[in-house]
Amino acid sequence: MPLPEHGSLFSLFMKYCSMDFFVKVLLHMGFLLNNMLKPFTIIAVAAVGIGVGTNYYLQRVPDMPKLDLNRWWGDGNRPNQEDESIRPFKITFNDTMIDDLKMRLRNRRPYTRPLEGMQSEYGMNTIYLEKLLKYWQDEYDFKGRADLLNRYPHYKTRVQGLDIHYMRVKPEAKGKQVLPILLMHGWPSSSKEFDKIIPMLTTPRDEYDFVFEVVAVDLPGFGFSEGTNKPGLNPVQIGIIMRNLMRRLGFNKFYIQAGDWGSQTATHMCTMFPDEILGFHTNMPLSSRPISNVKYLVGSLFSSFIVESKHKHRMYPLKDLMRYLVRESGYFHLQATKPDTIGAAIADTPAGMAAYIFEKIGICTNRKQLHTQHGGLENIDLNDLLDTATILWANERITTSVRLYAEAFAWPEVLIIQDIPTKVPTAAINFLHEVVYQPDWILRDKFTNLVHSTTLDFGGHFAAMQTPKELVDDIFKSTVEFLKFHARNK
Amino acid sequence: MPLPEHGSLFSLFMKYCSMDFFVKVLLHMGFLLNNMLKPFTIIAVAAVGIGVGTNYYLQRVPDMPKLDLNRWWGDGNRPNQEDESIRPFKITFNDTMIDDLKMRLRNRRPYTRPLEGMQSEYGMNTIYLEKLLKYWQDEYDFKGRADLLNRYPHYKTRVQGLDIHYMRVKPEAKGKQVLPILLMHGWPSSSKEFDKIIPMLTTPRDEYDFVFEVVAVDLPGFGFSEGTNKPGLNPVQIGIIMRNLMRRLGFNKFYIQAGDWGSQTATHMCTMFPDEILGFHTNMPLSSRPISNVKYLVGSLFSSFIVESKHKHRMYPLKDLMRYLVRESGYFHLQATKPDTIGAAIADTPAGMAAYIFEKIGICTNRKQLHTQHGGLENIDLNDLLDTATILWANERITTSVRLYAEAFAWPEVLIIQDIPTKVPTAAINFLHEVVYQPDWILRDKFTNLVHSTTLDFGGHFAAMQTPKELVDDIFKSTVEFLKFHARNK
Repeated sequence: MPLPEHGSLFSLFMKYCSMDFFVKVLLHMGFLLNNMLKPFTIIAVAAVGIGVGTNYYLQRVPDMPKLDLNRWWGDGNRPNQEDESIRPFKITFNDTMIDDLKMRLRNRRPYTRPLEGMQSEYGMNTIYLEKLLKYWQDEYDFKGRADLLNRYPHYKTRVQGLDIHYMRVKPEAKGKQVLPILLMHGWPSSSKEFDKIIPMLTTPRDEYDFVFEVVAVDLPGFGFSEGTNKPGLNPVQIGIIMRNLMRRLGFNKFYIQAGDWGSQTATHMCTMFPDEILGFHTNMPLSSRPISNVKYLVGSLFSSFIVESKHKHRMYPLKDLMRYLVRESGYFHLQATKPDTIGAAIADTPAGMAAYIFEKIGICTNRKQLHTQHGGLENIDLNDLLDTATILWANERITTSVRLYAEAFAWPEVLIIQDIPTKVPTAAINFLHEVVYQPDWILRDKFTNLVHSTTLDFGGHFAAMQTPKELVDDIFKSTVEFLKFHARNK
Repeated sequence: MPLPEHGSLFSLFMKYCSMDFFVKVLLHMGFLLNNMLKPFTIIAVAAVGIGVGTNYYLQRVPDMPKLDLNRWWGDGNRPNQEDESIRPFKITFNDTMIDDLKMRLRNRRPYTRPLEGMQSEYGMNTIYLEKLLKYWQDEYDFKGRADLLNRYPHYKTRVQGLDIHYMRVKPEAKGKQVLPILLMHGWPSSSKEFDKIIPMLTTPRDEYDFVFEVVAVDLPGFGFSEGTNKPGLNPVQIGIIMRNLMRRLGFNKFYIQAGDWGSQTATHMCTMFPDEILGFHTNMPLSSRPISNVKYLVGSLFSSFIVESKHKHRMYPLKDLMRYLVRESGYFHLQATKPDTIGAAIADTPAGMAAYIFEKIGICTNRKQLHTQHGGLENIDLNDLLDTATILWANERITTSVRLYAEAFAWPEVLIIQDIPTKVPTAAINFLHEVVYQPDWILRDKFTNLVHSTTLDFGGHFAAMQTPKELVDDIFKSTVEFLKFHARNK
């Protein structure tokens, strides 16, 4: 097992400086200093000792677990003959679904009003929610929105037993190099989240000699992609399905752009298939290695050394971050432990499902809008918001999508793989209101070739919907770095 | 501010043994012992020092905050003339409500089935849920159940601006002393939870020379009691309302039996009104003083000393308890942070509301029934379960009831008051599957006069529904101790 760079230095140190010797020196010094040595010094010295040991322990890299790259997720057992066809697909919001949805919205019971003087401090503001629901019921153009989404070619194909939906959009190459890029969304989104950025990626730009061919996919159990009936479909396993989908489409090597769970999935893909992923652009960069978490925690004591002062507020004081995380992660906690409960709770109520997902979408666009009635929702185009809700509702994907939270924490393979660094060239873009910010120094624990990094003082979690232009500009810029990286490492 | 008993001993110790002297001795000893002194000894000594200091700090008792005992919770401002009338009330489940409820149950969309091989591990089992909902829709006798509840006299009266519902049941005294007892439920219950134990409490027993007059109340925002539109109605404030209700009924001194949030409320009442509460019987005994939490944590290292070996499994290993608490507290986290979101999410779906509350009720009856389809629900009578759901649904109390979780953590007065011990004679009954178990040694941090304590190797959180006989037997036994206590302390 290869040790990270300074592991060997530490071994050298240990060779010449046994713990016994260290303690002896410490005690002699202690005696001489006598009353000057206060208890907290003892504790500090012990802490440094523990720290060095812990660092050594945490820098170890586990072995890659053995994974079945063709695991069966369909109903029952794998058939003798698998259907590998690629079928064109059109999004339809049919009248039965629309009428039923509108009937349920009309039939809604009156809401409990917000507490006096409160906006979104206790969660979804029901006065604002009513406006959204009224628009969904009376003004949202179901057919028109489906037509709009259908301006791209949609397909379905069966991978490892699950019907996977994706859009595949070829660029007008105009003599440019065509680079394949896979776009992966998170919860509660679908490939629809990329609607605005697809044309930007497939349109050549004068200043770049490449352009993208886009595959925007729905994760299994999301959007128009089938969910599994088998336990265990965690982000590592989804990563395998996504890689197999790309191979089916003829892409043995490709780029990825992703956020949220898509980014977690992509991170695992970079770890499992480092020679197949040509570059990874993420708007939710995250090293979940234990060493990174320790650095983040310990860093709160020395924040001036580990993060630029202008970005410090994104990490510290830790108390503020923890308060924000506790305040906003109730849904996460519930979904990670009782996904089938919340799935059943909002299975037959479009209004309730909308309340549940919209509150989260709002605050993720801007965590400081708790004291507004819209709670951040006005940072997203209303039709985009309702597309998301309609797709989730029409396909009955609440339970299958929230189960991902439970699967992500239930299987050791996820913990092991997230602790293995990847060499895939990676670019990070940090929007202001992303849930967690890690400086490059920490990101490099996981992404050893972090070739590009951007930190913006605006924007939020749903970058492709909220700040599509900035996101795409950064993808182009980062890809230049990816190409340079490969040129250097040929 | 009075110091607890051994606080003064500690002061004495501090007088003769300054920290500097202590460090000096430590360092001399360290030098002599030389190589024998290993780093963990230093850490252990430091830990003991920190421990003694922390204990001293934690044993301090804060001052009682100033509280308005007549705060207004009704809409707008307090009127010049308050309505203090006591109005007889009958529970009615009317046809409009019933038809609408049944229509919604019939109209339910098909559920996502549980994952292959799973029972309740991912939350509510939708196959089992369907059976419950079918019974609710086709067989539950709405009118008959209301009639049953109406066999007790119900009332409403306006306290501090809120209409409070309660049952008041007088005993056949037969020459026995009549003791008033207030029964308080928790979430997602109502006074209906006490349906089975009311007649047991009001029926004289040969072996006791007292019997109870019962007041079973719905907490504000629960059951048939009005919720507030003002922020701040936490368990301390609810305790004030409950005390004022009892005074309105002519009870200036009374006993309390309670569990769940009722027990938290009652605990605050014992702290605020120690001369008015004659005795407190709780099936969810809990000292939330910081010192108790520290004892609980530190105790995991010395569990053999602090808890009888036969009860040890209820507390430790801490890892198992934490895993259980994390697994089962998603709903709690969500309700404590975004009550209005979950309220809006299940406002118009009786099926969804049932799924959401039933999963929790099931597991609280027996935490080991995750691998069954019913998840613990078969420990509760089906009609009791559906009474709870029907009352919650008919009165639209989801949002107002879950807001209590948010209020309980938002206001400093709760933290302060829960850190003040009470002298009210208290009895604790510990059923096997109660959420948290604290041995008497810890409970006494809060309840300095814990006069009776029972620990049973069966039962769960909803004692009044699940094990009514054992609960009432223990109330009678405990009351003997309450009376002895008052005789001793006349």
